[in-house]
Amino acid sequence: MPELEDLLEEEDPVAIRRWLDEAPENEIADHLARLEPESRAIPFRLLAKDKAVIVFEEFDPPLQTELIEGLKEDAVRHLVEEMAPDDRARLLDDVPAMVAKRLMAGLSPAERAITANLLGYPEESAGRIMTPEYVSLRASMTVEEAMQKVRTLGRGAETIYTLPVTDNHRRLVGMSSLRRLVLAAPGDLVGDLMDTQIVAAGVHDDQEVAARLIQEANLLAIPVVDGEYRLVGLITVDDAMEVLEEETSEDLARTGAAEPLGRPYLSSSVFRTARTRVLWLLALVLAATLTVNVLHLFQGTLESVVVLALFIPLLIGTGGNTGAQSATTVVRAMALGEVRFKDLPKVVFREARVGVLLGGMLGLLALPPVSFFVNREIALVVAITLLAICLFAASAGALLPMLARRVGIDPAIVSAPLVSTLVDATGLVVYFLVARAVLGL
Amino acid sequence: MPELEDLLEEEDPVAIRRWLDEAPENEIADHLARLEPESRAIPFRLLAKDKAVIVFEEFDPPLQTELIEGLKEDAVRHLVEEMAPDDRARLLDDVPAMVAKRLMAGLSPAERAITANLLGYPEESAGRIMTPEYVSLRASMTVEEAMQKVRTLGRGAETIYTLPVTDNHRRLVGMSSLRRLVLAAPGDLVGDLMDTQIVAAGVHDDQEVAARLIQEANLLAIPVVDGEYRLVGLITVDDAMEVLEEETSEDLARTGAAEPLGRPYLSSSVFRTARTRVLWLLALVLAATLTVNVLHLFQGTLESVVVLALFIPLLIGTGGNTGAQSATTVVRAMALGEVRFKDLPKVVFREARVGVLLGGMLGLLALPPVSFFVNREIALVVAITLLAICLFAASAGALLPMLARRVGIDPAIVSAPLVSTLVDATGLVVYFLVARAVLGL
Repeated sequence: MPELEDLLEEEDPVAIRRWLDEAPENEIADHLARLEPESRAIPFRLLAKDKAVIVFEEFDPPLQTELIEGLKEDAVRHLVEEMAPDDRARLLDDVPAMVAKRLMAGLSPAERAITANLLGYPEESAGRIMTPEYVSLRASMTVEEAMQKVRTLGRGAETIYTLPVTDNHRRLVGMSSLRRLVLAAPGDLVGDLMDTQIVAAGVHDDQEVAARLIQEANLLAIPVVDGEYRLVGLITVDDAMEVLEEETSEDLARTGAAEPLGRPYLSSSVFRTARTRVLWLLALVLAATLTVNVLHLFQGTLESVVVLALFIPLLIGTGGNTGAQSATTVVRAMALGEVRFKDLPKVVFREARVGVLLGGMLGLLALPPVSFFVNREIALVVAITLLAICLFAASAGALLPMLARRVGIDPAIVSAPLVSTLVDATGLVVYFLVARAVLGL
Repeated sequence: MPELEDLLEEEDPVAIRRWLDEAPENEIADHLARLEPESRAIPFRLLAKDKAVIVFEEFDPPLQTELIEGLKEDAVRHLVEEMAPDDRARLLDDVPAMVAKRLMAGLSPAERAITANLLGYPEESAGRIMTPEYVSLRASMTVEEAMQKVRTLGRGAETIYTLPVTDNHRRLVGMSSLRRLVLAAPGDLVGDLMDTQIVAAGVHDDQEVAARLIQEANLLAIPVVDGEYRLVGLITVDDAMEVLEEETSEDLARTGAAEPLGRPYLSSSVFRTARTRVLWLLALVLAATLTVNVLHLFQGTLESVVVLALFIPLLIGTGGNTGAQSATTVVRAMALGEVRFKDLPKVVFREARVGVLLGGMLGLLALPPVSFFVNREIALVVAITLLAICLFAASAGALLPMLARRVGIDPAIVSAPLVSTLVDATGLVVYFLVARAVLGL
């Protein structure tokens, strides 16, 4: 199969249309995302109407917004009307308020009501990614009655595989599934085909928490309930995957001292890319001025033993790496729910021991070469410093993200890069204090 | 609900059993994973037989292996017999060969054949995580006939929602779903209810690639085919999520200069944790000895202008951070398939421009304070070095992971930490060369 990019360059509309007809929606979305913003609208307009909606839904909101600008009013209206309600809510959240208002006005009254309802929940909440289009059953229904309801309402539902069961007051009493109905006898009761140990999310719960529930329990969808345990929607596994993917992007970016791009790499301009990094870099440079101060403080020691300067990058680099290791491990363990705040003493003590193991080993390994190339006193200074720095860095790497989480800051923010930079300054202090003591300065 | 840990401490078997009866399987697995290995078997043995299988499947293979050691022979046999074939293959892969042989021998002939078949595919391949237990249809079937087949074979299948359609030679011709069958009329033909634009994985494809297909196409399962496009299995979305989760853990760990633990944090011993980090740390220390050499080379310059030493940590730290930023961004973009090798010149040029933007800004910001606290020449040296280091670090941060991928190394390995360390040495060279030129040394 030829690449869409090549076909577009050849400006062969027949071949482009054939490519678009044959490729699956996700592949089309991938290729369009890699194009320059202005060249995206042309092939998009060649898509069949239904396919266009699915491709459109595959895009992140920033790309959707750009695309909307290149389309005619009624094409946009059709797209937005046909989108899944949760995807639509995300888009409306992202476009400028004026555009959102216009798009809302173009919706049919039913879809407008659904969207307004979803937008009423806080950002990043479970309510924002749930679909209100589900099929619910009653425990007293027979399988035959239930299947009848599924057939009648199924076409408009996001999923008919996960079937919540509610009581007269819309309160959730159990979870059944199409699989159970299909494999049961027509006269069986839904009440006998449902789980009453329910994995559910609260409508105000964090999206990530809800998404992890789906992942951990290996479910295709979980019900979302309000404060009185009334069913308000379903979160499906595809939306959960998307949320987790975004969280991963965020965690990874922050571990690398940047904010996530929020859009495909090649579709992000140089300025936009720089913007995701500049605040991080400034903050880290500011933190690093600490090291200038420390060195200034010990400038006398440094002047009398210039050879000490040789090991500065190696020592603080090693401290930074040790801190990054423990911070990254602990941040990940927190994200997966393996470690909670009450485990803090256990975790810090554990990391301290890991730090001693690693630092002790590195210190021993450093003794012979430094003795040989410089001298025994400096070797001793380097070895002791390595041990102390690794102990300190590993403990701080565990402690800081856990404290951050406790006070409501994303632990990934105080993970690797910030820990490394803070450990740098401390490592220098340790280095010079050890040097003064050992060398008798 | 009380915590399982507390109930175990109180040694109240009635309360423990009640807790185990009421909690969902994933929650039980979470709590058991947090216990010491030796205390896991006791509550596990109290689980109902069917529930025990599900809880057992939730564990990672290392934990499964530990648990097996604490259980009686026939309990183990039951567990392993009842596991999903793909989970069982993963476990057998992980246990010592002797144990694997014994477990295989304990299986029923049918399950043994299935398992041997899965284990025949290479590690990390799509074949290893697929389930051979699916229901396939023929295009010529009516909906009624198809539903009959689903009802007959459904109980033994991992999923009945995704229904592949094959021809007489078992070749895949389309994909249908239970949703379509249920919403269609009994007399409709399966051939009219299937997608012929198929998203499929090859049985030897990489697991991560297959998992990303499921995620990108928002599917509940994809078919796995052999070289002749014959259907051999299905990969379901829960297995895809698990694969992606593991890849995320690996990428994150490596971005933080460590290997993934492969098991819940608190269940990993201090030694085991240190082992995931020690090689990384040694490699980085070795790479950092470059900085010692560079400083040794410029020791004369350093001795004549000791004040230059003050800025060493700040400058190389900033270079390291800039390199980490671009490396992390590019590694992520590659993982998501947004960037391919042929984009290399575009990506490196883009990152170089980002580096110039950031380095230029930092350089300008550094001029006034350094002029004020030290002097104008040193300020100029620091500013020029910042610009040069950021330009170099950002380009190298993009280039190295892309080259690594090209030669078959996981790009995450040459991401943040290695890039930072390599940039350190280069940054020092730049610093001293600029200093010599500006100060006329």
